[in-house]
Amino acid sequence: MSDTSQASIWNCTYTLIKHFRSRIKASGLKLQFCTNETQATREKFVEKLQRLGFDIAVNEVTAPAPAVCRILKERNMRPYLLVHDDVIPEFADIDKTSPNCVVVGDAADNFSYKNLNEAFQVLMGLKNPVLISLGKGRYYKETDGLKLDVGVYMKALEYACDIQAEVVGKPAKMFFQSALREMGVEPHQQLLLAKIDSKEAMWYSD
Amino acid sequence: MSDTSQASIWNCTYTLIKHFRSRIKASGLKLQFCTNETQATREKFVEKLQRLGFDIAVNEVTAPAPAVCRILKERNMRPYLLVHDDVIPEFADIDKTSPNCVVVGDAADNFSYKNLNEAFQVLMGLKNPVLISLGKGRYYKETDGLKLDVGVYMKALEYACDIQAEVVGKPAKMFFQSALREMGVEPHQQLLLAKIDSKEAMWYSD
Repeated sequence: MSDTSQASIWNCTYTLIKHFRSRIKASGLKLQFCTNETQATREKFVEKLQRLGFDIAVNEVTAPAPAVCRILKERNMRPYLLVHDDVIPEFADIDKTSPNCVVVGDAADNFSYKNLNEAFQVLMGLKNPVLISLGKGRYYKETDGLKLDVGVYMKALEYACDIQAEVVGKPAKMFFQSALREMGVEPHQQLLLAKIDSKEAMWYSD
Repeated sequence: MSDTSQASIWNCTYTLIKHFRSRIKASGLKLQFCTNETQATREKFVEKLQRLGFDIAVNEVTAPAPAVCRILKERNMRPYLLVHDDVIPEFADIDKTSPNCVVVGDAADNFSYKNLNEAFQVLMGLKNPVLISLGKGRYYKETDGLKLDVGVYMKALEYACDIQAEVVGKPAKMFFQSALREMGVEPHQQLLLAKIDSKEAMWYSD
């Protein structure tokens, strides 16, 4: 993708979000942005968006890591983390001793054989192995080419342990429910679920 | 597993193989051993068995790497190798320039994010991506615990590229056919396929 088309997509996304955001705010409806970003804390992610010109605050964003932290607390689960170094601060107040589940995110270079094997050994040591995946994407594009995403390693661990992961990230229902809880909104009060990404800009109702 | 039970299993396997081997040889039938070992050349593997007391020669063993080399030559394929360093000599006379397929073996520590990503990028760059996997095992046991096997990374690449791998290793038919070709035996002339491993000793007909 050339710089020009990348720039025009950014401009288009920026304009769309600004337009819809101001109309939704004016109507008095609540608005929350959902991202599958798991290579940075929510704070760092929002800082990046602000640098790009988006008028957005941390509490307007739902991301997989904070969502999974709520779930871990609700279910008294202590994770083995197979995640990117930059997202580890999101799990600061989570008990990680004697893990009784594995949380896998887009760990990039942390997806070593040693680390994947450790996660696998934790799962195999559990009576009821629980694998929580921060998304199920196959790959994404960076400036130096295509990169394997979290879903690939989720599938690897699913096959190794003959289990099915719980996905917390778009488009999993559990993730959107978490966003609604953050907004203090019941599922039946939800009006619209919108998707805007770099390849498409579309609206759909859940 | 204690040393005692490990030793008794070795003794049992050793006795069984010696018994059947001598009876088959005496009858004039041909015999070939098939292994899924992909962390060593056939020579190194046979040396190890000889050290353990097995009376066995290199040409009596069919292993995935030599089998896949025959297939690569037959199909004019040039592999990107995601394999263990110790098995690379098996591919010495294979053209590996401008890869038009990926061969994945039990690469252990070579299963880094960087290497898996390179294999993925090769596959995504092909019009008809071909992934050949030297087995599809989930895991195996070593003295320091369970280890992820090649099948796990095969599944990862299958999911990433939305393709299905060709498996060359037990129990894939293509692998046994390769062993028969090594013996100069037609499939209809095959008498018996036997399986002896550390957990079970059973006979089955194909």
